[in-house]
Amino acid sequence: MTTKIPDPSLKRLCNIYQILGSALEEGQRSISSAEIGKKLGASAYIVRKDISHLPEGKGVEDSGKLGLGYDAEKLKHHIAGALGLENPAKVCIVGLGKLGGAIIGYERLSPSGFEIAAGFDSNVNKLEMLKSRVELFPSHEIEDVVRAKGIEYAIITVPAGSAPEVLEQLVRGGVKGILNYSPVILPQDRDGVFILNIDIINDLRFMISHITASKGEKE
Amino acid sequence: MTTKIPDPSLKRLCNIYQILGSALEEGQRSISSAEIGKKLGASAYIVRKDISHLPEGKGVEDSGKLGLGYDAEKLKHHIAGALGLENPAKVCIVGLGKLGGAIIGYERLSPSGFEIAAGFDSNVNKLEMLKSRVELFPSHEIEDVVRAKGIEYAIITVPAGSAPEVLEQLVRGGVKGILNYSPVILPQDRDGVFILNIDIINDLRFMISHITASKGEKE
Repeated sequence: MTTKIPDPSLKRLCNIYQILGSALEEGQRSISSAEIGKKLGASAYIVRKDISHLPEGKGVEDSGKLGLGYDAEKLKHHIAGALGLENPAKVCIVGLGKLGGAIIGYERLSPSGFEIAAGFDSNVNKLEMLKSRVELFPSHEIEDVVRAKGIEYAIITVPAGSAPEVLEQLVRGGVKGILNYSPVILPQDRDGVFILNIDIINDLRFMISHITASKGEKE
Repeated sequence: MTTKIPDPSLKRLCNIYQILGSALEEGQRSISSAEIGKKLGASAYIVRKDISHLPEGKGVEDSGKLGLGYDAEKLKHHIAGALGLENPAKVCIVGLGKLGGAIIGYERLSPSGFEIAAGFDSNVNKLEMLKSRVELFPSHEIEDVVRAKGIEYAIITVPAGSAPEVLEQLVRGGVKGILNYSPVILPQDRDGVFILNIDIINDLRFMISHITASKGEKE
């Protein structure tokens, strides 16, 4: 029944989900598409269109006439249901260097619905030194631990050279998706496992190229 | 003269730029659109189309007939010129907590063409404790230091509550673009300053929603 929601809409819906969460935390119970759009940097029309992509999203109406906007709680719940964000997601982190260490200690993950179920590093001495509330394991146990704990998603923060081997182990362990922060681009799909490549250097380059390209446009 | 290159193409071109860099490091001098596409997770057609978006990009031909592919060095240079990646970019980091600390110590930034020109934190005691080859300043000096050093880009890794004030100071100091890693969505454009919001929680949510949406599609 579901028709494919385009990735740019999915990205905005994730942002809208976060905006709704912040509004609710601040005690705001209703929010208009215009207000969401302003926080998002998009038009009210785009916001309504993104929301209409959701299955039965057309029923979640922006009560434009009354100026009441969306019920923030209902819309947040609706997005969560459609995008699979309802249940806590089990995540592991592979590579406990500076970036991996920062992520494993990130306080917002747990209240945002992510359970960090395991951390891995190839350096056994480092594992003994690290203090973490998360259970830590040597990297050669990735496949077994992922399978035993039913871990669904992984964050890779290992050096470029180790990433392909880590990918193999995670795929064999049965993860469904991987955020790849290692400085190497992995194929976006590996035996049905979705891989999202993320790199601060690439983000910086995209920012610069977007600014450069916009400047060209104006000239 | 330049026509607007769509953001998805810009993102892929940044990835292609990185792929070319890796190929050259490994001594590979020519590369086909098919090979780039494989590493990118896109078709050879998409790769050729992205490259044709570049000004005069049609001249950088994939010598399909001879099976020689692109000259990796020339294509990399061509992309750098078109996207503004030729000169080292001056960047500052605001917020030296775990994530900011990981970024300021990230060894790949400098060889990738980024000069970290300053680090800022509101906690003066922390500045004294931190060891960094980068010059560190208290946050109230952001505007002055950014202007004096001619810093063009900023990475924000402060808590949500501090982000709006930091944004004001950076805009007044004259930056052109901001990568926002703080857990609050900032408007995408602020007085002509381009802001790219990045959040691991949002990336995790996008990954899950993409997987959920793809599953719906198959059912």
